[in-house]
Amino acid sequence: MTTTDHPQAAPTTTTSTAHAQLLGLLARDLAPDRLTTDPAVAAAYATDRSGTRPGGGPLAVVHARRTEDVTIALRHAHALGVAVVPRGAGTGLSGGASAGEDALVLDLSGMDRILELSPEDQLAVVEPGVITAELDRAAGEHGLRYAPDPASAALSTIGGNIATNAGGLRCAKYGVTRDSVLGLEAVLADGTVVRTGRRTVKGVTGYDLTALLTGSEGTLAVITSATLRLFPEPVATATIAAYFSSVEAAADASFAISRAGVVPALAELVDGPVLEAVDPALRERGAALLLVQCDGAGAVAEAEAVARVVEPLATSVEQTADPAEAEALLAARRLALPALERLGRPLIEDIAVPRSRLAEAVRGIRAVSARHDVPVFTIAHAADGNLHPIIVVDPSLPRLPDAAWDAADEIFALALRLGGTLTGEHGVGVLKRQWVADELGPAAYALQRRLKAAFDPHGILNPGKAL
Amino acid sequence: MTTTDHPQAAPTTTTSTAHAQLLGLLARDLAPDRLTTDPAVAAAYATDRSGTRPGGGPLAVVHARRTEDVTIALRHAHALGVAVVPRGAGTGLSGGASAGEDALVLDLSGMDRILELSPEDQLAVVEPGVITAELDRAAGEHGLRYAPDPASAALSTIGGNIATNAGGLRCAKYGVTRDSVLGLEAVLADGTVVRTGRRTVKGVTGYDLTALLTGSEGTLAVITSATLRLFPEPVATATIAAYFSSVEAAADASFAISRAGVVPALAELVDGPVLEAVDPALRERGAALLLVQCDGAGAVAEAEAVARVVEPLATSVEQTADPAEAEALLAARRLALPALERLGRPLIEDIAVPRSRLAEAVRGIRAVSARHDVPVFTIAHAADGNLHPIIVVDPSLPRLPDAAWDAADEIFALALRLGGTLTGEHGVGVLKRQWVADELGPAAYALQRRLKAAFDPHGILNPGKAL
Repeated sequence: MTTTDHPQAAPTTTTSTAHAQLLGLLARDLAPDRLTTDPAVAAAYATDRSGTRPGGGPLAVVHARRTEDVTIALRHAHALGVAVVPRGAGTGLSGGASAGEDALVLDLSGMDRILELSPEDQLAVVEPGVITAELDRAAGEHGLRYAPDPASAALSTIGGNIATNAGGLRCAKYGVTRDSVLGLEAVLADGTVVRTGRRTVKGVTGYDLTALLTGSEGTLAVITSATLRLFPEPVATATIAAYFSSVEAAADASFAISRAGVVPALAELVDGPVLEAVDPALRERGAALLLVQCDGAGAVAEAEAVARVVEPLATSVEQTADPAEAEALLAARRLALPALERLGRPLIEDIAVPRSRLAEAVRGIRAVSARHDVPVFTIAHAADGNLHPIIVVDPSLPRLPDAAWDAADEIFALALRLGGTLTGEHGVGVLKRQWVADELGPAAYALQRRLKAAFDPHGILNPGKAL
Repeated sequence: MTTTDHPQAAPTTTTSTAHAQLLGLLARDLAPDRLTTDPAVAAAYATDRSGTRPGGGPLAVVHARRTEDVTIALRHAHALGVAVVPRGAGTGLSGGASAGEDALVLDLSGMDRILELSPEDQLAVVEPGVITAELDRAAGEHGLRYAPDPASAALSTIGGNIATNAGGLRCAKYGVTRDSVLGLEAVLADGTVVRTGRRTVKGVTGYDLTALLTGSEGTLAVITSATLRLFPEPVATATIAAYFSSVEAAADASFAISRAGVVPALAELVDGPVLEAVDPALRERGAALLLVQCDGAGAVAEAEAVARVVEPLATSVEQTADPAEAEALLAARRLALPALERLGRPLIEDIAVPRSRLAEAVRGIRAVSARHDVPVFTIAHAADGNLHPIIVVDPSLPRLPDAAWDAADEIFALALRLGGTLTGEHGVGVLKRQWVADELGPAAYALQRRLKAAFDPHGILNPGKAL
């Protein structure tokens, strides 16, 4: 195929020779259905669920279907020094997939095959565009599951989950995405394909590149396949819903569960304003809700231990071992984000603090909210100390109000002051970059920049993100 | 203090100006009790439990007591280009701490303080020289435990465990060392102190340097403190000991447990020759033993599920929920290495294979043993697919017999052919270096070398190890 096959090969929207050359080479080397240069179509790839809007639309979009498409795109972009933004389903909340006018978007959502699912070795090999819930469903046919369950699981891709080291509800017991990634195939900035990790659950040959790439937000390499650990579905679950007269009391109860030595499969805290948004009838039951689920052969015994610890602190406690009833109890948590989206544009923060500081974090967030007169809604993966304070702004405003920025800033400062982190599971993206150096410190920050250069000497991979 | 305070400051055993300069600077900058230059004393630091003997004794030994001692040693060694070998208790089985005549040994065993133990946040902050079992004991006072339990736990240090990403018996359920490391303080080759990770259980700010340093065998940085996750002690355990008419049947039983969806806390396989070495009476009970322990609130129910799966394959099955009886059953495993050490010098291999290939690996090892007429004793962390084939050689021989080398070589090839790895938990050290590039492939190997250079541009940290 030659460039003349593609009317868009030298589009007028590119401003530099490098961009024009890149589009020509991509049109020459990729199948026609793998490349979009129409600015109107490409514009849809400029942002992600964070709503972050860079100036201008992306240069073009490569719709990768095979690893070879990725190597072609990267090899040419590397040679020409053009920025590349890898992208899954675009459900990121930190702007990690936002792409401005100088960037080539590398859309991996079409690499969506489950290449292997081995019930024997309890693992799956998947392409990055596989929807997370779809893998979990496929594993379920064999009595297995994919443990990480970010709230976006029905929409987000495995590649995006790995890029952000996504968390979810079940992390307290089953770990984050990193704990389920055994190995990766990834393409380096220059187009070299590397394989990391292994198919075994243990192995220490070489440096742990698998963990290094997990959570690197597309800045070190582009993941083209992942070998993922699957876990047996638990034989039983038992679920508790407890209401409290204050959100601090709910946080104290979560901490008491941890102190009692119980590791629940999930422990979700929902504060009063969120309950009100989901259903005013729930808010009437208490000022905060704590949902705890235990699973496995000891689920009922563990739930009873949880109930004993929680009852003295709660205003009401319900318990069930019935999965349908459990889902009804969990609905208050699952409906939180859709309910807040009805109120406006939610800015979802993602701080994490040591478990013992959870009540203090909750109190600090409330003080920030009051000080800036900004309503802050809080849900938390309580057993992890991972809080999502959510600022809801009027979507009709031309830009975010200063008070919202100031509140977010103080929430980050609060997290660091409590010995915590800016982001527990969503990633830094563009939204949290200005605070990263504060958390890492200058020596670790400089080291991270050297690592970035060792992977991507021309700096083409998702520039301006993560670091 | 000046160099004249130290008669050993310019020892005659060093051959180059750089070595003499380094000893002078160390004598000037370190407290007198922190430096050994007496060749007779330093010679004891030339090897580790692998028995690997490099030519000549080390240049000198720095006995670090504080991070500052490490920074002083590294800063000068970096400037002068002298090799540094970090060392904990010297219990490594791959030669990772062996030190030849050009090397400065950095002995971290004296940095042995538990700096913090927080029952609230279920974590400890420790110096690298803390003995692993000592941390576990200290955690036990608060109803917690340090989950990784390498067989060397009573002797080995946390720093060495992190350097090799050590495993142990409880990995199947509780993960390897990496899964318990939340954050590190480490000194880079040039003396810069970096902090990685955090005190929270979740966090995705920056690249995962904590995981990258874990398992890097002292080649990227020297760990000076670690923030480690602690887990609640299980409320109950239940233990099963099953004998089989063949080692393949025991491997099949282990795989059947995994297929049944049970995740045991440990599953140890002991083959007939090992049983014979421990106690001929045990060998009379069967040709292989599988020990399985379940823990937590569902321990007894899980053990019953295990027994149901194992019984049709076994010749006898015993079960107990009594901890003292459990320890008696586990003695057959715990006494394996001491028993083999009575027979000669054990060369402990450490391959790991996908769980479904365990029986095949066991069969392959037996074939290698027969082909080379080399007795191979096998114990395995069966639930992880991690096998330790142990070749016992006559300690009076001047060097390892060729047949032993050939057998080891074929065992590595077998591991890779079955989709496995050279080393599940012991590390590459010097003994497995020649096979590393085969496992990693050329692109990942080259990338790893670039990472090494980004951390340690002069190549002073544990040269000739790991990669």
